[in-house]
Order: sequence, then structure tokens, then C-alpha cells
Amino acid sequence: MEGAGPIGDSAGMQANAADVTTGTLYGVGMGPGEPDYLTVRALRVLGRAPVLAHFCKKGRRGNARTIADAVVSDPAREFPLVYPYTTELPPDHPDYVAALARFYDDAAGQLADHLGAGRDVAILSEGDPFFYGSFMHLWRRLKDRFPVEVVPGVTGMSGCWTRAGTPITWGDDVLTILPATLPHAVLVERLRGTDAAVVMKLGRHLPKVRIALSEAGLLARAVYVERGTMAGERVVPLAEKPDDAAPYFSMVLVPGEGRRP
Amino acid sequence: MEGAGPIGDSAGMQANAADVTTGTLYGVGMGPGEPDYLTVRALRVLGRAPVLAHFCKKGRRGNARTIADAVVSDPAREFPLVYPYTTELPPDHPDYVAALARFYDDAAGQLADHLGAGRDVAILSEGDPFFYGSFMHLWRRLKDRFPVEVVPGVTGMSGCWTRAGTPITWGDDVLTILPATLPHAVLVERLRGTDAAVVMKLGRHLPKVRIALSEAGLLARAVYVERGTMAGERVVPLAEKPDDAAPYFSMVLVPGEGRRP
Repeated sequence: MEGAGPIGDSAGMQANAADVTTGTLYGVGMGPGEPDYLTVRALRVLGRAPVLAHFCKKGRRGNARTIADAVVSDPAREFPLVYPYTTELPPDHPDYVAALARFYDDAAGQLADHLGAGRDVAILSEGDPFFYGSFMHLWRRLKDRFPVEVVPGVTGMSGCWTRAGTPITWGDDVLTILPATLPHAVLVERLRGTDAAVVMKLGRHLPKVRIALSEAGLLARAVYVERGTMAGERVVPLAEKPDDAAPYFSMVLVPGEGRRP
Repeated sequence: MEGAGPIGDSAGMQANAADVTTGTLYGVGMGPGEPDYLTVRALRVLGRAPVLAHFCKKGRRGNARTIADAVVSDPAREFPLVYPYTTELPPDHPDYVAALARFYDDAAGQLADHLGAGRDVAILSEGDPFFYGSFMHLWRRLKDRFPVEVVPGVTGMSGCWTRAGTPITWGDDVLTILPATLPHAVLVERLRGTDAAVVMKLGRHLPKVRIALSEAGLLARAVYVERGTMAGERVVPLAEKPDDAAPYFSMVLVPGEGRRP
């Protein structure tokens, strides 16, 4: 199984640079939370990459790093990327966008030093690296200078519908995936025409999402899932959830009702 | 790690029946094709379940079984579930629906015999078991009679966008997942309002999908991926694909263009 890539075989290798003396940038899908949902390829990369980078908020470890606890315990390899403080500014404020851009530039620069010195760098990414998330912002800055391999992962939403015990799509169901951060009118419009839905990034937006689901006629089918596959997991019909508190790792599922022969 | 479930620990165990003498029904996500994208939990279940059921067409092995080749080679455990012949009738024809219902009833009955005799049954499911696919039709018939565990998997679409080398969603992008089997007008309507899209189940529907993408203004961004992560993989901008041939394992991706600080 040892082949083209610096780490084991060549699954998913996308060599964007020919210089074999540089390290490879890995985006490693860490799955939804349960360590047993890591892939074989992710385990191999995590086991051998000399630099394990992970995003986190100041003073916290970050969820991707917590998932990795089950398989790696070597502080010398850890490389935390600490987000700039975000509480004062909304995500689309120009000053916040500028601060984030500087953060990603700096992080890419630090990782480029490792890669340039021939050290492989694995960026631990919650769920799947190319499905939302922060890895893509570093990938965009580094992909033309270094070899890259992305290791796909089980998404957080797969983990949630698995633990909710409900298929999300049947037959010819249309599935719409919506960030809760969107304006109310957009949420309603997109929810109205769909057969199934996943609403992510709930946080403080849950009251708005609840109303949008109600206006789209979907509230009765909506399921709230908090920390799916992780410690503290909670699954409850949204209509039965009495409060509007929702951590970052929560989402609302609207299972489809398509063809069932 | 050995716990509640008949096979190893209790990750994802959903005990729907209390009778401990029966076997457990496993829906095992086999991922997009590359065996290294199997999860740790899937490997454990595949390694131990005495009955490995997989769907296939007459005279063919089926893709889920082919993925399993890398990890299991024990014909005595194989349990093929052969779809009824489908070429003469469209999928929504009442006679075809009735034939499929009989097929699922029969298959569930045969698996129930194994489960009732205390033998665990693993149903090999391409991608993720609760995201389209046939597993759900057996799950629906058996879930109230036997303990069930679903093992989520990397979806086929994750495998495709990984190999296409493109993030599918950034920032607040809306992602719409559409079966190509839908009517032209529905495809256009759903494509028009979305930031990113995945069109699955292409087959003979590719000409219709091409026109719908063009009318929605998305053709220039569309990428065609055939057999992503499998032998014979092919990635090409849809606008540059000269023909309209598309096997079952192909899809069209429209990557989002959201916020990129």
C-alpha cells in the first residue's frame, strides 16, 4: 500500500507541485465526532504527519482536535491555529473579514514554512474538508505551491441523521442544505420548494429558523440534533424543544418523504 | 471497546427491540468507492457479521460488494439481493413499483430469518445508508422487530468533489442536491435559486440536465465526475464533455462561490 504519496498510498493524491522535497498539505476529514467514524486513510495520515494543525477559539481545544484524541497524543506535533476574537463584530463586517484574511494569510505562511522544509502538514477538519469549514481558506492559499491531498470525511449532517434514526432522502427527494445565518425571507423561499432540508450553523439563529420552518409548513417534520455522535448528544423533535438555545454543533433536519415501494 | 452491541462497541447502536437472542441489522456505509475511505466502524462490522447482504443487478456484483473486496473475501457470508428486471418499465410505473415492493418484502423476509436465528446481518450500502439508496427500504421493514445500527459513510458526492479538487460550499452558500430524474422545469427552478448544486442519478438524463444548467446560468461552472474515487475515474468540465453518455455512478457538481476572506 506504500506508493506515490509521502504518507502511504496514493488515495486522493492531487500533486499540484512537482518539487518532491517539499511536504504535502493534507486536509483530513475528521468526521462528525465519533472517532470510529474516522476513515482508514484519515487514521494513516494522522498517524504519520509531523505537523497536525487544527483551528480553535482562544482558550479552547476545538472539536477537530478533540476527535483526534482517540488516535493521536503527541503535543510536539500539534499546531493550533487560533481564530481572531469575533464577539464584537458580525461575520460580514469589513473589519472582521479583514482580520480573518490576515489570520488565514499568517496561518498559511506558518504552514508554508513547514511544507517548504519538507514536513507534511495535516489540517484537521471537522466533517468533510471541502464542505464548509476553514480548511478551504488555507487550501486556497497553498494549493498552487505544494502537493495537496484531501481526505474526505463523514459529514456532521450524516452523523446527525444517523443518530436521529431517520433517512434524510428517499427516491427522487430534493435535499436543500441551508446555513441558518441567511435572511428569514431566503430561508422561507428555499425551504418552501424542497422535499428535505438540513439547516446548519444554528447558534443564535434558531428562533428565525423555527419561524421559517413554520411558514414553509415543515415545522412538524423538523428534528433538532445537538452534538450528534459526540458526548452530550441530544435528539428532539424541534416542535418539542422548549427553548431556543443552540450550540454551534447543532442542526435541524427535515427528513424527506419520497418514494417508498 | 467491547460493549453493548453484538459487534464490538456501541457506536451508533439503536436498540429497537429488547430480545437479546436476535441478531442486529447493520446498515454499513461503504463510502464512495476507494476502500481507504471506509470507516473504522464499517471495517469492524464487515469483519465480523456472519451475513453480508448487498444489492446487485442480475449477473453483476454491484458496487458496494466490489468496495468490500478490499476487506472481506468469504463467499459463505455473501448474501446477494438481486433487483427485479427493470429495463421495460419506468421507475414510477405501478407494475414496477409493485415488483420492487415484492422484492423488498422478500428480501426483508429472508434477512429476518437470519436475524431471528441470532445472526447479525450487515447490508452493504454505497455512500451513506440514510442518503438515498436501497438500504432504507429494508430498514423500514425490519427496524421495529430487530436491533439496528446504522454506520454512516462518506457520501459518493464527497468522493466526487474531493477528486474534482474543488470545495463545494463556502461561507453561507446554499447547496441543493437534485436527482436528475426530476422534470426539466423542476430542475431549472431549483437550480436558479441555489449557490451550489449536486445533480445525481444522471444516466440517460444528462441532456436534460445540461439544458437545465444552461437555463439557470450554471453550465460554465458545472463539473462532470464519473466513477469518483473508483477505477476508471473521470473529471471534466461539463461544457467540455462532448457526448451525453453517463453511467449510473456519475454526477454533476456546481461548486459554490461564497465568502472567501
